[in-house]
Parts: sequence; structure tokens; C-alpha cells
Amino acid sequence: MEFHHIGLAVENIKDYYNKYLKLFGFNELTPIKILETQKVQIAYAINASGVKIELIEALDETSPSTKVLKRKNGGLYHLGFTSQEFMKDVELLKNRGFRVISLGEDVAFLLAPTMELYEIIED
Amino acid sequence: MEFHHIGLAVENIKDYYNKYLKLFGFNELTPIKILETQKVQIAYAINASGVKIELIEALDETSPSTKVLKRKNGGLYHLGFTSQEFMKDVELLKNRGFRVISLGEDVAFLLAPTMELYEIIED
Repeated sequence: MEFHHIGLAVENIKDYYNKYLKLFGFNELTPIKILETQKVQIAYAINASGVKIELIEALDETSPSTKVLKRKNGGLYHLGFTSQEFMKDVELLKNRGFRVISLGEDVAFLLAPTMELYEIIED
Repeated sequence: MEFHHIGLAVENIKDYYNKYLKLFGFNELTPIKILETQKVQIAYAINASGVKIELIEALDETSPSTKVLKRKNGGLYHLGFTSQEFMKDVELLKNRGFRVISLGEDVAFLLAPTMELYEIIED
């Protein structure tokens, strides 16, 4: 698996990008994309070295990213990785004690035994 | 400012690295370094692309990283950046509403108004 992005839950994608991430050298924001199944909209902020922060904004109150923001400890949410052997890697993680939170055709969210959330995206 | 690392609080650096991060393509772990002032010990896990995850282990119960682990929502802790104009960047962030949590000679921790923790390291 290869590191892909840092997932960050925010109230408003454009606000967070403009107010804060630009200060930290993120000078590109991809177009906002709606992910109906996850009840969120997302965009990637990208810096000159190609580091990606996925900004995640809830589409409604039932979105999982709403829950993250309600914790009041900031929006750091998950680490995202690409996989060239998607189902094999999901199985490997399950065998190491990771719990599947959601499993789609080409994207899965798994919780480490120590409670960090990892996203695996088929490459 | 330039992105430097993802900070992750863990119970045990070597355990987390060996059990979990190796699965995600992190094949290098730097020697463990004790940071007395922050009451932690740290090491960087690095992948083939040079992405760094700072693994942070408390030296005792009063360490700030202990507090992160007590939240039970995983150890995602902060985003670290280097700065070539350290004091200027700290002032800039303060002016944008970031709150200084700690300020040393060459490292500062600041909390965004939305509660994410950012670390600034003099470059």
C-alpha cells in the first residue's frame, strides 16, 4: 500500500482551505466532489511537493464526518492509502485486527485496534 | 511553510511501527529520540516516497500525548510543518486566530480555531 492522503473533517471546505491551509503552503484545491454514499463532499488541497489533504464536509447531520467534528478535538480524521491488491490488503488488515467500518467496491474504511481510521482505495 | 510530518500518539513506538505501519509501506524507522521538555519520545516512520509519520510515545502520565490517547478516538495528533521564518510564521498564525499551546526556541505548537493542532519547526 502507498500513502495517499491525510483526511480532515471540516465545517466548510473552501473556508478551511482559504483561511488556514493556504498559510501552510497548500496552493491547489481540486474541484469539490460529492460522494453520496458517504454523505460528504470532498476536495484535495495539494502542496508543491504533492502532499494531499482531503477536506471532508458533511452533506447532512447523519454524515460520519459530522461525528468527528462533534468531538471538538479538531478534524483529523483518517489516513488514506492506495492499494494495487485491494481485497487482499483488506483481508490482511482484518487478520491483523483491523475492523471494517465500510467496504465498497473500491474503497474501504478500517479501524485499527488502537482506533485510528485508515482508508484503503483501490489503485 | 512546508509540510513535514503527520504526528501520531501511540502507546509504544516499536509495536505500532512493526504491527501496523509496516503494512502500509513504511519500511524505515529512525532511532528513538527523547524530548524531555515535551515528556515524550519520538521516532519517524518513513515510506519509500519520503512521507514521515512521527510516532509519539509518552514518557509519563503527564505527557500531552497521554491526553490524546485517553480520548479513545485513535492517536491522530497534529500536522507538522517546517518554517524558514519561524517567529514570523508563528505571529502570522496568531493573527489568524491560532492559539499558542507551547513556544520554544525552534518549535511551536498552535491550535487552529477549529481545534486542529499544528506544529511549526524552525528550518
